[in-house]
Amino acid sequence: MIKLYGAGYSNNVNKVRFVANALGVEYELNQVDLFQGQQYSEEFIKLNPVGKVPVMQDGNFTLFESMAISKYLAGKEGSNLYPQDLQQRAVVDQWIDFCDIHVQGAFNRVAFNRLIAPQVGAEVDQNSLNFGLEMLEKYFPVLDAQFGQSKYLAGSELSLADINLLAILDPAEVAGVDISSYQNLQSWFQNMKQQEFYTKCHSDFKETMGQ
Amino acid sequence: MIKLYGAGYSNNVNKVRFVANALGVEYELNQVDLFQGQQYSEEFIKLNPVGKVPVMQDGNFTLFESMAISKYLAGKEGSNLYPQDLQQRAVVDQWIDFCDIHVQGAFNRVAFNRLIAPQVGAEVDQNSLNFGLEMLEKYFPVLDAQFGQSKYLAGSELSLADINLLAILDPAEVAGVDISSYQNLQSWFQNMKQQEFYTKCHSDFKETMGQ
Repeated sequence: MIKLYGAGYSNNVNKVRFVANALGVEYELNQVDLFQGQQYSEEFIKLNPVGKVPVMQDGNFTLFESMAISKYLAGKEGSNLYPQDLQQRAVVDQWIDFCDIHVQGAFNRVAFNRLIAPQVGAEVDQNSLNFGLEMLEKYFPVLDAQFGQSKYLAGSELSLADINLLAILDPAEVAGVDISSYQNLQSWFQNMKQQEFYTKCHSDFKETMGQ
Repeated sequence: MIKLYGAGYSNNVNKVRFVANALGVEYELNQVDLFQGQQYSEEFIKLNPVGKVPVMQDGNFTLFESMAISKYLAGKEGSNLYPQDLQQRAVVDQWIDFCDIHVQGAFNRVAFNRLIAPQVGAEVDQNSLNFGLEMLEKYFPVLDAQFGQSKYLAGSELSLADINLLAILDPAEVAGVDISSYQNLQSWFQNMKQQEFYTKCHSDFKETMGQ
């Protein structure tokens, strides 16, 4: 069985859990207490020198970065969540990168300042928070238009691109990010949260906060 | 011949040009004037709704996001720059994602505030600039240690992970980011800048600024 290292309040860890569930891959979750700084322990740094979760171990093979792990697992299972066809795969990669670099970058500015900073006693950076919100207002319409054209992010079939975006937006409610005015995006989000790969992990992100 | 849309002062565009050069793939570069906002024109938004460069067209197939394009081109050519072996590919993906999300995210805070903001009359955000520098001081030692262990970022062979990092760090000098104290990283960087795929594009990033 593969081993995952992380915490249930990390949406990047949950991303890999959603993917593993969707693939039917069993995993053992080893808790890493991020608020206690366990990700910087000597033991953990041997697994990931960057000091971030998740980390995966498949036998002697150790890997970090949530999407690299997700793609590895999908590839190992030969799953259509990450299509073999070159152009189809490229479109999945495109939406993953857009979401990981741009949407997540903006979302994290909001989440850090509204959720993490108060918990760890860091100063709230209002400029960063505002910039994040401004960028999300630029990116959400793009996603909304995309979901107006196709059922899933990269076309007519569920792919890793959807699970990635689901994990990024999962803490939206607790971070006070309202997507309800983007109707296509909101419908897709509600649909995703009813999928078994999601509910098997948690019924709502809010309930796993602090666990 | 594939078409690229972008500008020579965009390191994400140059990333794809380095990859195309390394693969021996010819391309036609269509200039997009980012300082004039041409990336938000009605015509360009049809190619990429996000309004960012680069965009690639291969016949009727249109793709955005620099690494998605790079992986597509390497896959089409069957190149070892993006290995077929599942674990080798996963390690390349891991370093690409680490660099794209974390290193680039931090670097862009520095580059935006030092290079772009003064040119477009935007306010410099000193907190963001400082946070970027602080994060780079955390990530550079990880890269330096990695280059102490292996010749290239993902192992003994050149891969897309190296070309990605090269493109991210290419504006380091003009952005006042000094990597000279990280000797392994610096040696790798100097080696990369001597490769033909790089010199065919430009001999130094500074010389192409503003073109």
